[in-house]
Amino acid sequence: MIPKDHPRYRSLVTRENLARSTRSGIVSLEGLTAHGRGEAFDYLIGERTTESAHLAERIAAAILISAKHPVISVNGNTAALAAPQIAALQKASGALVEVNLFHRTKERVKQIEDLLRETGSDVFSGEAERLLPLSHDRAWCRREGMYSADVVLVPLEDGDRCEALVRMGKTVIAIDLNPLSRTARSATLTIVDELTRAIPNIAAACKDLSAPECRQLAMSVNNHYLLSEAIREITLRLDHAMD
Amino acid sequence: MIPKDHPRYRSLVTRENLARSTRSGIVSLEGLTAHGRGEAFDYLIGERTTESAHLAERIAAAILISAKHPVISVNGNTAALAAPQIAALQKASGALVEVNLFHRTKERVKQIEDLLRETGSDVFSGEAERLLPLSHDRAWCRREGMYSADVVLVPLEDGDRCEALVRMGKTVIAIDLNPLSRTARSATLTIVDELTRAIPNIAAACKDLSAPECRQLAMSVNNHYLLSEAIREITLRLDHAMD
Repeated sequence: MIPKDHPRYRSLVTRENLARSTRSGIVSLEGLTAHGRGEAFDYLIGERTTESAHLAERIAAAILISAKHPVISVNGNTAALAAPQIAALQKASGALVEVNLFHRTKERVKQIEDLLRETGSDVFSGEAERLLPLSHDRAWCRREGMYSADVVLVPLEDGDRCEALVRMGKTVIAIDLNPLSRTARSATLTIVDELTRAIPNIAAACKDLSAPECRQLAMSVNNHYLLSEAIREITLRLDHAMD
Repeated sequence: MIPKDHPRYRSLVTRENLARSTRSGIVSLEGLTAHGRGEAFDYLIGERTTESAHLAERIAAAILISAKHPVISVNGNTAALAAPQIAALQKASGALVEVNLFHRTKERVKQIEDLLRETGSDVFSGEAERLLPLSHDRAWCRREGMYSADVVLVPLEDGDRCEALVRMGKTVIAIDLNPLSRTARSATLTIVDELTRAIPNIAAACKDLSAPECRQLAMSVNNHYLLSEAIREITLRLDHAMD
């Protein structure tokens, strides 16, 4: 039991929830460590949606609703942390939801698909093939799903796969708390924000944006600026830390 | 299997090793997430021992070999990552080695003590009592061990317990990759370095230091300066990141 008076109570409770999802098989053990990496960067941006992240989320919404064949790629951590929010984003954006795992087994794919369906997503499944140019198991996806997508939203992504998707000519929207990561640098658009804050913000923007706003935002992607702003937020916080 | 061409191969292999230690019970699931937090900060200091961390490690050695009753506190992550290095540090410093866990069960304590013994540590065990003023299970320690120590080395520590040990009048040496953490700020001396680099460096300094050097270093603890330097290293790296 985490005592309620612990100053990092919320963060420790989320950790416990993820640990529970590991026992059920949704989250891989390596996924817990990856979550910890994210926690550290969230701490450094102040555990809030920064102004530049808010802008990135509105641009993401504009890109998703303007896309012909958008796909939301879901892994174990994403499902464990935000399955209901993914369902709401699917409704708001009209995107396909497809499972893609680094630590892939047929059973884990099925288990995560079941969780997503139970929480309201319409999951695109069926036979996967090894279609992405990658040496590990994130290469597996569906021909009519991610492989054919023009826009892919990749929350909590592996740098390799992000680069591969960009090289295939896709517009890749990443959600990544580390503004220095390969994923953050190689994506078309990077949202430096925590998943459970970012996904509902994108869904809300999908509903709010007018058609002209949408066109304007989708044209205004400057990922270098957005990442610089995220890094500036962190250095500001660090500079004040020792005062 | 992690492909060897993955650019974060080493970090991912360590993650796999820790995941294995979770299956055996040495590392708690929450410990995996805590490790991820550390990974992020290590990445930000460039995955190397900085000059200020090197100085902190020499000061730590001076404090340990000048102490009357030094104790090295070991938790699951520390044992999984650095059990042989802990044994070497014990030999070089003459400190007691005592297990103290956040996620405490008698079985886990025993399992970690066994691992430490197998890898060469002389472990101080025996009946634990609830002796530290804390609401969680890190309150448990031994009267003749940590409770009576004048100096405690706490690698990968919880902020609460670090503060409690300082309030009890002990000299606390923390190893913590996050220079902003409560542990880092409340410890007498904080080493902002990765555990498997820090512990051997302290052990080497224990052997190298002359008596006058030792006296001088033990008198020169300025934790505010050391933390400021660690933060400066991180901001330098961030400033260069977007060039």
